[in-house]
Amino acid sequence: MKTVAVRNIKRADDKTIAGLEKLGVATVHEAQGRTGLLLPYMRPIYPRARIAGSALTVLVHPGDNWMIHVAIELSQPGDIMVVGCATDNADGFFGDLLAESCRAHDIKGLVIDGGVRDTRDLTEMGFPVWSRAINAKGTVKETVGAVNVPIVCAGQYVNPGDVVIADDDGVLIVERDTAAKVLAAGINREINEESKRERLARGELGLDIYNMRPQLEKKGLVYLDNLDEYAKYEK
Amino acid sequence: MKTVAVRNIKRADDKTIAGLEKLGVATVHEAQGRTGLLLPYMRPIYPRARIAGSALTVLVHPGDNWMIHVAIELSQPGDIMVVGCATDNADGFFGDLLAESCRAHDIKGLVIDGGVRDTRDLTEMGFPVWSRAINAKGTVKETVGAVNVPIVCAGQYVNPGDVVIADDDGVLIVERDTAAKVLAAGINREINEESKRERLARGELGLDIYNMRPQLEKKGLVYLDNLDEYAKYEK
Amino acid sequence: MKTVAVRNIKRADDKTIAGLEKLGVATVHEAQGRTGLLLPYMRPIYPRARIAGSALTVLVHPGDNWMIHVAIELSQPGDIMVVGCATDNADGFFGDLLAESCRAHDIKGLVIDGGVRDTRDLTEMGFPVWSRAINAKGTVKETVGAVNVPIVCAGQYVNPGDVVIADDDGVLIVERDTAAKVLAAGINREINEESKRERLARGELGLDIYNMRPQLEKKGLVYLDNLDEYAKYEK
Amino acid sequence: MKTVAVRNIKRADDKTIAGLEKLGVATVHEAQGRTGLLLPYMRPIYPRARIAGSALTVLVHPGDNWMIHVAIELSQPGDIMVVGCATDNADGFFGDLLAESCRAHDIKGLVIDGGVRDTRDLTEMGFPVWSRAINAKGTVKETVGAVNVPIVCAGQYVNPGDVVIADDDGVLIVERDTAAKVLAAGINREINEESKRERLARGELGLDIYNMRPQLEKKGLVYLDNLDEYAKYEK
Amino acid sequence: MKTVAVRNIKRADDKTIAGLEKLGVATVHEAQGRTGLLLPYMRPIYPRARIAGSALTVLVHPGDNWMIHVAIELSQPGDIMVVGCATDNADGFFGDLLAESCRAHDIKGLVIDGGVRDTRDLTEMGFPVWSRAINAKGTVKETVGAVNVPIVCAGQYVNPGDVVIADDDGVLIVERDTAAKVLAAGINREINEESKRERLARGELGLDIYNMRPQLEKKGLVYLDNLDEYAKYEK
Amino acid sequence: MKTVAVRNIKRADDKTIAGLEKLGVATVHEAQGRTGLLLPYMRPIYPRARIAGSALTVLVHPGDNWMIHVAIELSQPGDIMVVGCATDNADGFFGDLLAESCRAHDIKGLVIDGGVRDTRDLTEMGFPVWSRAINAKGTVKETVGAVNVPIVCAGQYVNPGDVVIADDDGVLIVERDTAAKVLAAGINREINEESKRERLARGELGLDIYNMRPQLEKKGLVYLDNLDEYAKYEK
Repeated sequence: MKTVAVRNIKRADDKTIAGLEKLGVATVHEAQGRTGLLLPYMRPIYPRARIAGSALTVLVHPGDNWMIHVAIELSQPGDIMVVGCATDNADGFFGDLLAESCRAHDIKGLVIDGGVRDTRDLTEMGFPVWSRAINAKGTVKETVGAVNVPIVCAGQYVNPGDVVIADDDGVLIVERDTAAKVLAAGINREINEESKRERLARGELGLDIYNMRPQLEKKGLVYLDNLDEYAKYEK
Repeated sequence: MKTVAVRNIKRADDKTIAGLEKLGVATVHEAQGRTGLLLPYMRPIYPRARIAGSALTVLVHPGDNWMIHVAIELSQPGDIMVVGCATDNADGFFGDLLAESCRAHDIKGLVIDGGVRDTRDLTEMGFPVWSRAINAKGTVKETVGAVNVPIVCAGQYVNPGDVVIADDDGVLIVERDTAAKVLAAGINREINEESKRERLARGELGLDIYNMRPQLEKKGLVYLDNLDEYAKYEK
Repeated sequence: MKTVAVRNIKRADDKTIAGLEKLGVATVHEAQGRTGLLLPYMRPIYPRARIAGSALTVLVHPGDNWMIHVAIELSQPGDIMVVGCATDNADGFFGDLLAESCRAHDIKGLVIDGGVRDTRDLTEMGFPVWSRAINAKGTVKETVGAVNVPIVCAGQYVNPGDVVIADDDGVLIVERDTAAKVLAAGINREINEESKRERLARGELGLDIYNMRPQLEKKGLVYLDNLDEYAKYEK
Repeated sequence: MKTVAVRNIKRADDKTIAGLEKLGVATVHEAQGRTGLLLPYMRPIYPRARIAGSALTVLVHPGDNWMIHVAIELSQPGDIMVVGCATDNADGFFGDLLAESCRAHDIKGLVIDGGVRDTRDLTEMGFPVWSRAINAKGTVKETVGAVNVPIVCAGQYVNPGDVVIADDDGVLIVERDTAAKVLAAGINREINEESKRERLARGELGLDIYNMRPQLEKKGLVYLDNLDEYAKYEK
Repeated sequence: MKTVAVRNIKRADDKTIAGLEKLGVATVHEAQGRTGLLLPYMRPIYPRARIAGSALTVLVHPGDNWMIHVAIELSQPGDIMVVGCATDNADGFFGDLLAESCRAHDIKGLVIDGGVRDTRDLTEMGFPVWSRAINAKGTVKETVGAVNVPIVCAGQYVNPGDVVIADDDGVLIVERDTAAKVLAAGINREINEESKRERLARGELGLDIYNMRPQLEKKGLVYLDNLDEYAKYEK
Repeated sequence: MKTVAVRNIKRADDKTIAGLEKLGVATVHEAQGRTGLLLPYMRPIYPRARIAGSALTVLVHPGDNWMIHVAIELSQPGDIMVVGCATDNADGFFGDLLAESCRAHDIKGLVIDGGVRDTRDLTEMGFPVWSRAINAKGTVKETVGAVNVPIVCAGQYVNPGDVVIADDDGVLIVERDTAAKVLAAGINREINEESKRERLARGELGLDIYNMRPQLEKKGLVYLDNLDEYAKYEK
């Protein structure tokens, strides 16, 4: 295991990050071609939070949160801590004291492929967390992991400095190098969606807006009048 | 695979549906003999919604939401869209645009054995959804499924036109033909429960109200005074 | 199977219980050496409840809630009902009528390694429940289990009369005999945490407060300046 | 709950069943349009069994195997018992005594959405079982279910008398009415597959055999020479 | 956490253990009233092993196998090591070197609520293991747990010195004090089963052997002639 | 989504790969510092296979196996196909025809974060597969993915050309650049293990071989004579 902490990483610019935060997970996920999403078991501890920031990556070991302390020192204001674990483990790696410390260093939130505790306090503090579990089980500080190296978190590869977006729909990673391009695509998408939304709200059908009927027929969709016809059709 | 869309289905009458909605899932489930319940992994995206309507059934394929567009055209006001998938899949088949379209056609809500996204928007719109997952992962439109044919959704067989009831306790299917009879049984049950509730609230014991003591004794329940007796009893 | 109901059990004193309730699950869990926690699939049906009380233990069989009725008669005001099941089962063992009955006997809440229903009513009543599932599926009354004997609930051994603490972080068992000692340790811990919290809130690092740097170095943590160094370091 | 046992059901003819058995699950599943498959958690208790027969359907309740006794009397030689449960439950509903009884009545095997025990004896007897779990936990005989009515088993709707095929790949249901037609399609498919197999074994590519290249290009697949080109392509 | 290793524990006598081993898990589970079974996710790493012995209990922490080394010194020939973990964790706590060591000390096998590795070597050595996972992930030796204290393993409470039985059906705990009584009940059960088995093998029905018909009728089972009657019966 | 197929990738040399194959997953996993392991849900379809080769990476979409055809053309003899899916999906992406094709191109085996079918044929062919499920459910060919780009498979990041090792213990990735170094470390480890194995087989304790006693005492392990002392110690 590489037991390494990297001091300096590149980050995306603040404007791009702010733009991506405004668009949210579902729109940006579409805009970058449906990649970058963490597995859907990652859920927010309270509803209606939405944040974006630079990934401060942390690799921990099961039942051990030592590296989180190391990571806080290497953070920059606006970072989001992204914690992967060497194996599936749902212990409570993070609680109110660590949240206090994160806040003092302007870390915006936590994404952890593990458990979290003191969720009531975290909710009252308004410190947002996306985790795989809520779990009061505490952890030790015995095994060294890594900070600011590439990790896998909830099925997704994350480089330190990638942009993280998290809201009620889940957590998304946008690679730092493509973030500006993705933002542009997301804004276009939103404009495009707006006109679709209006037409749909007036009752127009997706079948017509997207001109799906010929393709559906070609691929074999058959319209029947009622279930009696269907019963015959089956045989 | 039958790639079929059925235009006309029979539905239960509005009064019966309204009556079942008022009773809610738990009561109606009991009233129809503890059948018809979807598996409990189906959860609402926001609390305190309760709806009932006619099942507009949709069969989709993993990662593909094409048939949902087809279904909207075949809906009637008051329907609930019930989506089963050909295999276990938690992709985000449904989001705010489709919800907008559903609402324009007076579809009351969605029950989907898959994932859903834009949950914050759906919550703000008040469009209720029961799903197995929240997942921003989008879907394609490549493979034809079916609309308004019998499906299995979350372990339950659903015919188009069956009555669907959904609330905080889960999702229940009532067969169209028996809906009126089930409603009557449910109303009786509620009346009966009311008197039980009052007696229980006054501190009477279920043991006495339901006259359970003789049966418990017959089946072998033994009362002991304390845990020391239990330690002896074991050996 | 021992089909036994024990009438009299020893309980911890009210003051100790009240003290533990105030401290909450995460703090007490640490104070007693990170033991006693139920598995994290046990979740509250509504947020922000926190209770502590004496365990009124119940052993039920899959799909059968008979013993819950037996248990209510043997309860004392302030008890928390703790229900284990002979096998993994998520049926809805408990609903609004039983909650009404529990309340009439001043049972403070329910912890059940199974399902619960009528959650909207329970929420409105303010009757707190921690369960593994929400499930409208009803149960029968055919098989005798046990009341007030030692059980395993969600991976944790529970003696009748042990102290149960439950809040947003989960459910914790404190053995009756050690409850007073654990309370003292918990209070100490809280005082100690308070000073840590203040220092962390001012921006001091855990690395310094806990003097972790020498130990991290000894165990092999290496600081690198940037990811280029890391790329070299790997080979 | 309908507590009913139906004495006489229609079955597919023996020749059709024998033909489907020979084709196996994967081929027939394709031949009938990729429908009818039970969820993949259904696994054989020993490898290399393959059977087909008429579904003798049984609906049981969690922790209760009473209806299996009722079903044996209503079986015909060559039937396969298909057991669904009213809720998710993995108790050991079936063991060596019941297998002995099934064999005396020429029931060919068991498909059960629950647990099974005495698997070593069953293996030695050569009585094949597909189940969701192996579990020594015994069951009671207290609650009446149903025999030979339509059920849902592992996510699949099954009518009594439908053809069941089971092998190492899982369990498949073929509707009785369409079985002959599906058999014909399956035989065709196998012939067709044979020629494909030979070409593939000689090293021909699926890309060429199925003429996929133009379609891949049309849908946007781009060939790059190496990963350096890919790194540029991304930005 | 009690960080304790207990040197001397009481064990059941060899004859009783040998008798229980011969009966196997399913029979003994019935004989002691359907209690004592570990959760069914515990599976053998190879088929057809059957062992019984005294429980040498071990409590480990996630990702840490230190206590297994401590336990080997405290073992007695014929013991079965039973390992519980402080939280859900599937790391590979045990491999071929530890198996070599166990064998040198005549430990008969391992039951572990965690992962195991080198399973091919263990199979070739004939060292039987029941575990929740096979996992090559290694563990550290940093955190002290306990040996020969009561633990919970896979949902079951285990006292050091209790009798452990393990075979293809799973793992069962028999309390040391009741082992002789349970053995006697098991032998009786087997004799009784033998005569049942013969009658069932001759084709007699369980319905008649156990005289179930009157009870089935009383509880509401209705026989119908065919599915047409059922269709009418439903409405 | 990058819809790209990369023609030429770098591979490790054959000798290194052969050396790693001989060492096996558990040993190499240790030798490279306990990294690189796929999640333990990846299981072989038959026991006692062990292979190593260069990763031919494939990214597929749920229910769609099109890219596997593309990958075969880009393979080199000795490659192992490693398939990741854009979302959790257990459909049967791969069967006997594709195995025939892989064999014709000397692909050594398959690692797939999805399902596989025709497992009996694959076993008879001796074509080894590690998968998350066995599932007869077929797939379509509609959506373009990627070949020979970096992917995440079962929680592990894989670059095309990395060394894959797979056996009964699971699947391991060794980065191409470090493979030679890891092989050397693995061989050393094995030599070292051999002497340990002999000492353990003679009955020496790990406690002594690894000199654990002082450290255990320092970390607080207390030896007690019996459980009576433990009962006192607890209070």
